[in-house]
Amino acid sequence: MAVSEAVGRVTAAPVSAAMSSPHFHTAAMDGFAVAAEGTFGAGPDRTICLEIGRNAWPVNTGRPMPPDTNAVIMIENVHFLDDERFEIDQALVPWRNVRRVGEDFVASEMIVPAHHVITAYEIGALIAGGILSVEVVKKPCVLFVPTGSELVPADTLAVREPGPGETLEYNTLILSGLAEQAGAIAKRHSIVPDDFEALKSAILEGVRSDCHMVVVNAGSSAGSEDYTAAAIQQLGEVLVHGIAMMPGKPTILGIVEEKPVIGNPGYPVSAILSFEVFGLPVLETMQGLPHHSRPTISAVTARKVPSKLGQEEFFRVKLGRVGDRVIAAPLPRGAGSITTLTKADGIIRIPARSEGIEPSAPVHVELLRHAADIDRTIVIIGSHDLTLDVLADELIPANVFLSSSHVGSLGGLLALKNHTSHCATSHLLDMETGVYNWSYIHRYIPEIPVRMFHGVMREQGFIVPKGNPKGIRGFDDLIRDDVRFINRQSGAGTRVLLDYHLSRLGLDCDSIKGYELEEYTHTSVAVAVLSGVADVGMGVLAAARALSLDFVPVATEEYDLVIPQEFIHDEKIAILLETMRGTAFRQRVLALGGYGVDRTGEEITESSGN
Amino acid sequence: MAVSEAVGRVTAAPVSAAMSSPHFHTAAMDGFAVAAEGTFGAGPDRTICLEIGRNAWPVNTGRPMPPDTNAVIMIENVHFLDDERFEIDQALVPWRNVRRVGEDFVASEMIVPAHHVITAYEIGALIAGGILSVEVVKKPCVLFVPTGSELVPADTLAVREPGPGETLEYNTLILSGLAEQAGAIAKRHSIVPDDFEALKSAILEGVRSDCHMVVVNAGSSAGSEDYTAAAIQQLGEVLVHGIAMMPGKPTILGIVEEKPVIGNPGYPVSAILSFEVFGLPVLETMQGLPHHSRPTISAVTARKVPSKLGQEEFFRVKLGRVGDRVIAAPLPRGAGSITTLTKADGIIRIPARSEGIEPSAPVHVELLRHAADIDRTIVIIGSHDLTLDVLADELIPANVFLSSSHVGSLGGLLALKNHTSHCATSHLLDMETGVYNWSYIHRYIPEIPVRMFHGVMREQGFIVPKGNPKGIRGFDDLIRDDVRFINRQSGAGTRVLLDYHLSRLGLDCDSIKGYELEEYTHTSVAVAVLSGVADVGMGVLAAARALSLDFVPVATEEYDLVIPQEFIHDEKIAILLETMRGTAFRQRVLALGGYGVDRTGEEITESSGN
Repeated sequence: MAVSEAVGRVTAAPVSAAMSSPHFHTAAMDGFAVAAEGTFGAGPDRTICLEIGRNAWPVNTGRPMPPDTNAVIMIENVHFLDDERFEIDQALVPWRNVRRVGEDFVASEMIVPAHHVITAYEIGALIAGGILSVEVVKKPCVLFVPTGSELVPADTLAVREPGPGETLEYNTLILSGLAEQAGAIAKRHSIVPDDFEALKSAILEGVRSDCHMVVVNAGSSAGSEDYTAAAIQQLGEVLVHGIAMMPGKPTILGIVEEKPVIGNPGYPVSAILSFEVFGLPVLETMQGLPHHSRPTISAVTARKVPSKLGQEEFFRVKLGRVGDRVIAAPLPRGAGSITTLTKADGIIRIPARSEGIEPSAPVHVELLRHAADIDRTIVIIGSHDLTLDVLADELIPANVFLSSSHVGSLGGLLALKNHTSHCATSHLLDMETGVYNWSYIHRYIPEIPVRMFHGVMREQGFIVPKGNPKGIRGFDDLIRDDVRFINRQSGAGTRVLLDYHLSRLGLDCDSIKGYELEEYTHTSVAVAVLSGVADVGMGVLAAARALSLDFVPVATEEYDLVIPQEFIHDEKIAILLETMRGTAFRQRVLALGGYGVDRTGEEITESSGN
Repeated sequence: MAVSEAVGRVTAAPVSAAMSSPHFHTAAMDGFAVAAEGTFGAGPDRTICLEIGRNAWPVNTGRPMPPDTNAVIMIENVHFLDDERFEIDQALVPWRNVRRVGEDFVASEMIVPAHHVITAYEIGALIAGGILSVEVVKKPCVLFVPTGSELVPADTLAVREPGPGETLEYNTLILSGLAEQAGAIAKRHSIVPDDFEALKSAILEGVRSDCHMVVVNAGSSAGSEDYTAAAIQQLGEVLVHGIAMMPGKPTILGIVEEKPVIGNPGYPVSAILSFEVFGLPVLETMQGLPHHSRPTISAVTARKVPSKLGQEEFFRVKLGRVGDRVIAAPLPRGAGSITTLTKADGIIRIPARSEGIEPSAPVHVELLRHAADIDRTIVIIGSHDLTLDVLADELIPANVFLSSSHVGSLGGLLALKNHTSHCATSHLLDMETGVYNWSYIHRYIPEIPVRMFHGVMREQGFIVPKGNPKGIRGFDDLIRDDVRFINRQSGAGTRVLLDYHLSRLGLDCDSIKGYELEEYTHTSVAVAVLSGVADVGMGVLAAARALSLDFVPVATEEYDLVIPQEFIHDEKIAILLETMRGTAFRQRVLALGGYGVDRTGEEITESSGN
């Protein structure tokens, strides 16, 4: 293939230079080419005169040396006497300022080895070596077969939303992207319904085509309609069914007509991790490439991470550097949630023989992002608010990233104590003084000097289904027999607010159905209401509005940022505060509804009395 | 653009979900969907019986929950009584084994932020969110204008070798590759000769086209035909001419008709580094992307690296981990030598205010390769031999890399002393005993326990021009008046061999013209002969043969590997020795000519008396 198109391709054999570089003695400076011997004896006390065209010839960098010359006098070192003659006051050794034939490499020298991914730089070296075309490894081809009667093609979306029971097929799109990034050609079969014979024909079609591998997604677990293992077994051989990894357990490895056939799990995260562990190495080996492992970084987890003995667990984590440690905050485990991968900065693999990771134990994290981005990440742990998403988006142009974990206001303060975050988000109301946060700070983290900044004012209220069918108006409606509540976790500012009002009104929390059911974010409370799990929950207007739910306002509260003094001069934190004070952020927050931004980004000193 | 084609593209705006994921309550396990309330009270002592079709419905993972159900009993936990009824002995909490609507994300939640490079994973998240097309940033376009009357297009090679004075144009091919990797569209103008008006039209054509930036390569220094600065100045404005960086100094930054125009230096390494420092960030900014910096690694240099005060110097280095330190070995500085970049593992930037790096001082190295590859690299320092290239190539399939620096045999032993290499290559003959290496090891590195292994037997001799015009036959020819010699550096085994024979024959080295001119490798000695710098030099047959030179054999010698005991059980070293003992390596070495491989890879103990 033409060298000029070979960037990223893999060499099939070592490539050696057909000619030397440079292939002629070359002036390495602008000036005059001379015979060095004619300059011997020149010095500050004894100049030598040279004549252009007789014993000196003008040359520019990169041009060939005239015959019988072997050195270049730099133009800066020449003192003209007239148009034809000049003096020099220093001698040159032979080959001074000359690039000799073969100085870089000589004909027959190897320029790139075999089984090597050609870089843009190497295009230059190859052409300099007289090579115009290179033999590259043929790209392996993989056929992805999506199977399942519940699947509908992604472009169904062009005409309608999928209905209940219809699952958009996108796993094979992701896997195709990964295969292509690994240098393969990806082909996608049309969706095969749960039909044993149809699945068998699709696999056979694949192994008998020019594809080198077939990946069936999914139908690899124990459900009544999972035919993949049986199909592979009938057509060839199942080598492995079930892997001690999580997610990815129901993977099948087989051979049909001498080609590898993989049965890939159905959940997107399982499908990806299983393909990365078993599919990609096959494609790499087919190209003669070593297995590409991700760069790793050393980190500690913010909390204990339990893992099941006997299987390797793959945890997706957010990362950020706090002080001299990289902090890994685990994302949810659900293999059905693709965002646990798209939001992840890295993956921790907990070996099968381990029962998990203790807090502050060092772990290796496989990086999904550039290590430099981790250093540009602000770790926020604390109370959840939807404006954090807006803030994250507004920080990107400044090359600053947000990793936010939602553990409630109190959990946020405790994270500062453990040095696992740069900033806590908090809206803890002192019921006696009516002042937010300070009394909690003094009580829980007295040893950490902190500064506090206004985040947003926000409306808290009852999130209820469209039309408020249960007619929720106030806190006393929560104890009604026909009302199912969904609560926030203890330590959450919203929970504190609820308890404050219940106690103020003398209402007993035990009479609230669902008081013990806890969610960790405003959004998940809204989801619980939307999905009929509960009739009402407490949260912010924006969460209700995002899901087109109704909202009964209860109170306006402060949602603030608590930042340890030690980070206040960190460039990232300065950019964070500046961004919060900017117009773009405020306008986007106002557009969410239910927020006030008049004092956003202002410092709140304790003496300011709020 | 279609989401399915958007991998690697940059989002123009944040993308939010149009629908929730999952968009229906979904069974998370294979089993039976039930109303959780109907299982309350079940336990090991009190089973509850359920009837399929009445209060339990079979479901597979991923399928919708039937009406009025809110939990799934896993198939493993069901005890069938008959075809229609089964018992359970544990209760379920509501929503157990169910993925609720919006569990991953809800409609309106942001899936990817603005100015973000879309990953394969995110394709899945976008489609799960009901997004079929995304607004992406238009790719910026850059026009590269190669200029210089000495340039000939690379595809000249298809018909003939370039002649003296003709330079193959490949810089704009490299730069195009880099621009495309940064997400831009690269266009290449035809070669513009050294003609002021022609260059002006090419620049104007570029800025008036749909391109967003023009890069002129080269014509940016002070040579008599360097028109770029003048052309930019006449068409627009030169903002900067000359940068305190090396290589890359003669860079020009200008504006023509409101578009950036860069005058890029002509040497390939200068052209690349200048474009990476000034061109790529413009293309990134045009896409709203942060500047992508390379990952860095901490290393120490094997020797002192002097740098010129007042300019930032970019050193290309080979890297390898020896013990707990990464060792950086600087490559040659010549900006004309593209292989100083293609062979480099990293780049050290020495700031303008520094005069260089002291040995063992920690430095940051920008990585050009994966950090994991550095850990898989064997650092060899010592005597040069062409078989090291073959060895490097044969090691690649085992995912082991070689970094070899050529400082002569003695320098190799001293590197072991300084713990800067894994292995020394050495052919130091003890003139009294006729035994190789051991006496030198005892004298120079007595404190380092080492093991020694046969490398190759090789023929040393005189490398002379084709036809041996000076009729060199033996060492006494070297002192002839009409013979110019090229020597190896002191400490090189070949130099020891020369000195041994001169002393044996009672010849005075001062009578050899060129005895003081030193080269560091067999190949550079051969290049000196090929290019007419010298009439004869000493080296191995393979070096002569590679350049089609003639060879007068003088002696057969041992070329061995000296490996500290501490690395002998390192997996890489084991692979190295195994590879040397293999048939493939030996056959390729024999094909080079002048080598013997009978004992290659065998250990040489001191008592074995050689």
